[in-house]
Amino acid sequence: MGGRALVQWEQNRDNAPEALHVDLYAGGPAPEEGLADVTFYQVPYAPSTQGVDERLDIITRMPELRVLQLVSAGYEQVLGLLPDHVTLCNGRGLHDASTAEHALALMLAAQRDLPRWALDQREHRWGSVPQRSLADSRVMIIGYGSIGRAIEARLLPFETEVVRVASRARPEEDVHGVNELHVLLPEVDVVVLVTPLTEDTRGLFGAHEFALLRDDALVVNVGRGAVLDTEALLAQNGRVRAALDVTDPEPPPVEHPLWDAPGVYLTPHVAGGSAAFYPRARAFMDTQLARWAAGEPLANVVRPGK
Amino acid sequence: MGGRALVQWEQNRDNAPEALHVDLYAGGPAPEEGLADVTFYQVPYAPSTQGVDERLDIITRMPELRVLQLVSAGYEQVLGLLPDHVTLCNGRGLHDASTAEHALALMLAAQRDLPRWALDQREHRWGSVPQRSLADSRVMIIGYGSIGRAIEARLLPFETEVVRVASRARPEEDVHGVNELHVLLPEVDVVVLVTPLTEDTRGLFGAHEFALLRDDALVVNVGRGAVLDTEALLAQNGRVRAALDVTDPEPPPVEHPLWDAPGVYLTPHVAGGSAAFYPRARAFMDTQLARWAAGEPLANVVRPGK
Ligand SMILES: NC(=O)c1ccc[n+]([C@@H]2O[C@H](COP(=O)([O-])OP(=O)(O)OC[C@H]3O[C@@H](n4cnc5c(N)ncnc54)[C@H](OP(=O)(O)O)[C@@H]3O)[C@@H](O)[C@H]2O)c1
Ligand SMILES: NC(=O)c1ccc[n+]([C@@H]2O[C@H](COP(=O)([O-])OP(=O)(O)OC[C@H]3O[C@@H](n4cnc5c(N)ncnc54)[C@H](OP(=O)(O)O)[C@@H]3O)[C@@H](O)[C@H]2O)c1
Repeated sequence: MGGRALVQWEQNRDNAPEALHVDLYAGGPAPEEGLADVTFYQVPYAPSTQGVDERLDIITRMPELRVLQLVSAGYEQVLGLLPDHVTLCNGRGLHDASTAEHALALMLAAQRDLPRWALDQREHRWGSVPQRSLADSRVMIIGYGSIGRAIEARLLPFETEVVRVASRARPEEDVHGVNELHVLLPEVDVVVLVTPLTEDTRGLFGAHEFALLRDDALVVNVGRGAVLDTEALLAQNGRVRAALDVTDPEPPPVEHPLWDAPGVYLTPHVAGGSAAFYPRARAFMDTQLARWAAGEPLANVVRPGK
Repeated sequence: MGGRALVQWEQNRDNAPEALHVDLYAGGPAPEEGLADVTFYQVPYAPSTQGVDERLDIITRMPELRVLQLVSAGYEQVLGLLPDHVTLCNGRGLHDASTAEHALALMLAAQRDLPRWALDQREHRWGSVPQRSLADSRVMIIGYGSIGRAIEARLLPFETEVVRVASRARPEEDVHGVNELHVLLPEVDVVVLVTPLTEDTRGLFGAHEFALLRDDALVVNVGRGAVLDTEALLAQNGRVRAALDVTDPEPPPVEHPLWDAPGVYLTPHVAGGSAAFYPRARAFMDTQLARWAAGEPLANVVRPGK
């Protein structure tokens, strides 16, 4: 392919096919020149960046752009910015190990009182309370996609049962449609939210869904904050617990009641970007650039250019 | 079998074979009468009790005792108290789900900074730091027994590699003997200690073993506190990290440096006794009492009576 590719990691430049002209841009001030003939742009990874920033602003200075490559799984933030003829690819799969691992960390933290022990240690206090377990729980995964499957794989050896939910039922895979949600909720102990943020998923988990859950059930959110209705969670007042890596608003303002809500445990949007992400992302980019150079179909196309 | 069985849970009394006389004792003040003809005694479960207490004191008032049944996995605390003719059975297997789950919770907590997030939440602070992951780690399990296997089963889907160590090599199972420890340690990222406390394991992990580990490696202890040399850990001063459910001394006195040691994370001996333990223990006791009533060989004999 003609033109220039702009990518983040040296490994990908060094491994690129000879025919491809590859430059580096890792974020920050835009490159002085060379943007005019960029045809393939990998937006530098910035964990949990929200809204528009320099990395996205420079798209307007790339008239020849054919492919916008994200290495995040979420892509709602760029849909509005991109000319119709540009193909959008995302980082589906690259965050699976990291995000699924963090989802398990949140479940275990909530069931085994890890936040309490951290605060007790600081006070030099050693005293235990009866412990819940993750074993024997029925766990519903809302968003049985790439990360959802990775969460399931990690959950099963914990002697749990998994209930799979996606946008539409796939009976041959034992996946329920989200239209069955209300029938299923009363029977589960843990709910994991891991859908993209779309018009359909905004507020998906609200007052009615909370009301259907058992006392002391746990809701984990590693998808997007606005999929869960924060007010509805606060109204539970500890009846249902929550462990959230993403929040709405994100971050919660310093006076927001979410910080001290009973039974609510927060981590600052760190699920997807741990050390596990980087080798997977660099390996993916090597093969994606090879595909691009060879004129082969790209992987992870979420919106083909027209 | 003649005589009387003394057990903790009503379910076991209610499900016992008719021929067996079963009474309940759940700890606390000793029963006024009936101890003289107790032949089978299940010591009531008390998480992390140390040393002698009432539950063990009453053994001296059971002249007909034939079987002492513990539902804990550790049994070092009763070996000195028991007449030679009494058979000792333990709770091997009953804590596997609970303890293995907590071992994973500790590994994930340490890798994904959960204690930091708990303290940050209390301060209404949202700010992230680069995250380690558990994925891609090589994890050594020292004590590849009942719980060790359960830890391995939970670890593998996290995209880790497991190195198995037991007291003696079992090449056909890919288990290394502890005599190979020093060759193996430089190549691992995480070490999990889950051996019983014996003369051989006391101080097993000390200054020399720490010195062989990589910078930023993690040592998890869910076995017994004294298997790890506390002074050696403190001397690491954060170079190697640790997540400990058991400590030496246990609990650490309020002025002990372990509480604030850099890179050390503590939970108060809660690994084995979570909710997952109880249904497994009651089911085991049902079948154990049935074996006893039928004169069949008992399960989980750790020292046969002579
Ligand atoms: N916290 C973090 O750091 C972090 C990191 C990475 C990703 N994420 C978030 O996780 C999301 C999922 O990533 P992924 O790679 O797993 O995406 P994916 O493979 O596209 O899977 C998304 C799943 O959500 C389901 N879904 C969509 N709309 C739904 C609805 N209305 N009701 C129920 N299910 C619905 C989809 O159903 P179908 O199977 O029927 O299409 C699919 O199973 C990303 O979009 C991102 O927002 C967060
Ligand atoms: N923190 C908690 O709440 C909690 C809960 C439950 C149990 N525990 C502790 O965990 C221990 C293990 O329980 P388990 O049921 O898994 O026991 P297990 O099935 O008997 O396994 C013990 C393992 O330790 C190995 N081992 C013994 N001495 C060793 C040595 N010197 N070096 C290396 N490995 C050695 C054994 O090796 P071989 O295979 O060669 O015999 C065996 O693989 C218990 O004894 C108890 O102290 C703690």
